[in-house]
Amino acid sequence: MGMTMTQKILAAHCGESTVKAGQLINANLDIVLGNDITTPVAINEFEKAGFDSVFDKTRVNIVLDHFVPNKDIKSATQSKQCREFANKYDILNFYDVGQMGIEHALLPEKGIVTAGDCIIGADSHTCTYGAVGAFSTGVGSTDMAAGMAKGVAWFKVPAAIKVVLNGSLHRPVTGKDVILHLIGEIGVSGALYKSLEFTGDGVKSLTMEDRLCICNMAIEAGAKNGIFPVDEICEAYLKGRSQRPWVKYEADPDAEYERTVIIDLDTLEPTVSYPHLPENTHLAKEGKDIKIDQIVIGSCTNGRIEDMQAAYEILKGKHIAKGVRGIIIPATMAVYKECILRGYTEAFIDAGCIVSTPTCGPCLGGYMGILAAGERCVSTTNRNFVGRMGHVDSEVYLASPATAAASALTGYITDPREV
Amino acid sequence: MGMTMTQKILAAHCGESTVKAGQLINANLDIVLGNDITTPVAINEFEKAGFDSVFDKTRVNIVLDHFVPNKDIKSATQSKQCREFANKYDILNFYDVGQMGIEHALLPEKGIVTAGDCIIGADSHTCTYGAVGAFSTGVGSTDMAAGMAKGVAWFKVPAAIKVVLNGSLHRPVTGKDVILHLIGEIGVSGALYKSLEFTGDGVKSLTMEDRLCICNMAIEAGAKNGIFPVDEICEAYLKGRSQRPWVKYEADPDAEYERTVIIDLDTLEPTVSYPHLPENTHLAKEGKDIKIDQIVIGSCTNGRIEDMQAAYEILKGKHIAKGVRGIIIPATMAVYKECILRGYTEAFIDAGCIVSTPTCGPCLGGYMGILAAGERCVSTTNRNFVGRMGHVDSEVYLASPATAAASALTGYITDPREV
Repeated sequence: MGMTMTQKILAAHCGESTVKAGQLINANLDIVLGNDITTPVAINEFEKAGFDSVFDKTRVNIVLDHFVPNKDIKSATQSKQCREFANKYDILNFYDVGQMGIEHALLPEKGIVTAGDCIIGADSHTCTYGAVGAFSTGVGSTDMAAGMAKGVAWFKVPAAIKVVLNGSLHRPVTGKDVILHLIGEIGVSGALYKSLEFTGDGVKSLTMEDRLCICNMAIEAGAKNGIFPVDEICEAYLKGRSQRPWVKYEADPDAEYERTVIIDLDTLEPTVSYPHLPENTHLAKEGKDIKIDQIVIGSCTNGRIEDMQAAYEILKGKHIAKGVRGIIIPATMAVYKECILRGYTEAFIDAGCIVSTPTCGPCLGGYMGILAAGERCVSTTNRNFVGRMGHVDSEVYLASPATAAASALTGYITDPREV
Repeated sequence: MGMTMTQKILAAHCGESTVKAGQLINANLDIVLGNDITTPVAINEFEKAGFDSVFDKTRVNIVLDHFVPNKDIKSATQSKQCREFANKYDILNFYDVGQMGIEHALLPEKGIVTAGDCIIGADSHTCTYGAVGAFSTGVGSTDMAAGMAKGVAWFKVPAAIKVVLNGSLHRPVTGKDVILHLIGEIGVSGALYKSLEFTGDGVKSLTMEDRLCICNMAIEAGAKNGIFPVDEICEAYLKGRSQRPWVKYEADPDAEYERTVIIDLDTLEPTVSYPHLPENTHLAKEGKDIKIDQIVIGSCTNGRIEDMQAAYEILKGKHIAKGVRGIIIPATMAVYKECILRGYTEAFIDAGCIVSTPTCGPCLGGYMGILAAGERCVSTTNRNFVGRMGHVDSEVYLASPATAAASALTGYITDPREV
């Protein structure tokens, strides 16, 4: 029996010629990542364990992104701890206020993560980097601590679900609609501890930003990781960007999949996950009666330049509905600046929106757009659990940037093809 | 005995031909103002008192600026209460996310406040509008509630201190240096319940932005209000901006002043207020040994376009020191947009700074740049009390935008003439 793409990467990183689902392995890590919330916990574990060096100062990444510029004394103290640790161990990829961006947007953008990598991050959306053909998964802060010190982590080799994408995507339908639709099909536990391996003719109609968004939300189906083949589009993205040579792994023709899910991209429509689970999917066009108070466009899921462009295409020359707050958050400083240079920011302001400096902020109820009781938000983020963005009696509707922007214009959930 | 400029405005607003210091009066109000922190308290009082209408829906102003986009559930709930009140009473000047700016920058910018006005605001820095020749002062939320309902407020007519400005201001010395120097001279209680009436040949060398900054911090000397004469510069500012005709009041030649303070603008140097009081002033050039962690350029004191320009002149083409976080916050959406159009924002980003959507945020320890223990910030805000911007063991140094920008470049308190 052959191996999946994920299994091949894991085998190569633990020195075995083959691994199989369920096997426990110790894998060498290419990249270890933490943010301003998880790194302090990892630092405490690191120090408690008596570690006094990092395995490779070029491979440890600390990104302050959740609550910076700091939102309170606690987050300021956490940032300070990260800063001191980064200085002490000369961590090269330490991203503070001014250089920073949301971690999962920043690392691919800078070419820090690349194809064939084995990556852990103390953040559940670390699975994002499957888009560039890496095995990448979220871990706890203790694993991050050990990873920083030793450059290894243990894994149970995951079984896999094959997701076959047929046809091609028709804008304004995007990767976000693909992943919401998939989670709607298989449920939030549908891929528990499994790889979601995307394949099929339709892959070539997906941009890298679609793929980053899709892999980002693999965890919302419970997956250990999501992964895309390294095709021409991926290699074009990595070229001139990847800081290291990359390795292209392919699933064996006889790789074992526990399940196959087929998605017809041609007939896919703008999709919205209603409260309070990502699996609670509906078509955007059926949401006309749902009045909203706020939209958020941004996050590690949808804060890239193509997401901003999608919002711009809808919002330019128009104004959002009275009573709607429009919050747009480019995910990195580079995206923020590019939005200015392309005139998007000016158009967003003229449309009545605000543009925030990069932050995870509202996605996890941190700041920059928290909801009061009874308020509804259409958000391009990744989770709509009870109270996720504020009060337990608020509601989050997950959607693509185009759907969020269209909804801002009307004040109701709106299919972007209808504005 | 004649009247001061302040006394003349108050007399005109209480239907008396003359008033004198110490007299209790009931004055008619032109403008009543509240923000997202103080308005909810005023609304509660308004409702408790059984009021069911506002005196003039065009004269009540509610500006959400302290913690919006909302930083937590409490602030989201407060904003919601303001929004519902504004809708119920059809408050025309209600500024929500997207239209908003910091109240004391927004109201002059939009010409809502004008010369000769009698203004109260439930915010201590309401004294800002003295720059346009208005009597304007901060009140409690109960006074705001009564003011919204009845359009009147009681005052004890203040005595006055005459501040004579001689010579002329030489950039990069600004209005901020004038007011910090003055507070250093007279102390934080030096003008307790008095008017600070600015006069002298030097006034004509002050831009409106200098004057707004100076009046903004009148309260930091304990003053009831600060006020500038309505000269050609002021009238040029009001022309095409003021939403109502204005009235120009002048102090009588025999007006009584309890004290006269003379400031020689020609010899004034960049000034910094060290922790933990605005009166603790030093020259910027003497701060070379004080290492800093952060700068903040913004707030109701120094978030206007001229402030941004001053920062730009220092920062353009350069990069802030390693380890310094540079936080720049245009005070209103108009300033934010103008910074983009003029290329300031791009220069700030290239210099390693971040640019926030308008908010009071860090000034009062709200969010967007809170300090951890042991951290030092050079800030263009107005208060440097213990714990004002975060941890009780952090330190705030008040300065002009030019001084803050220069300090960011070196990482130490720096005279802007030396970079």
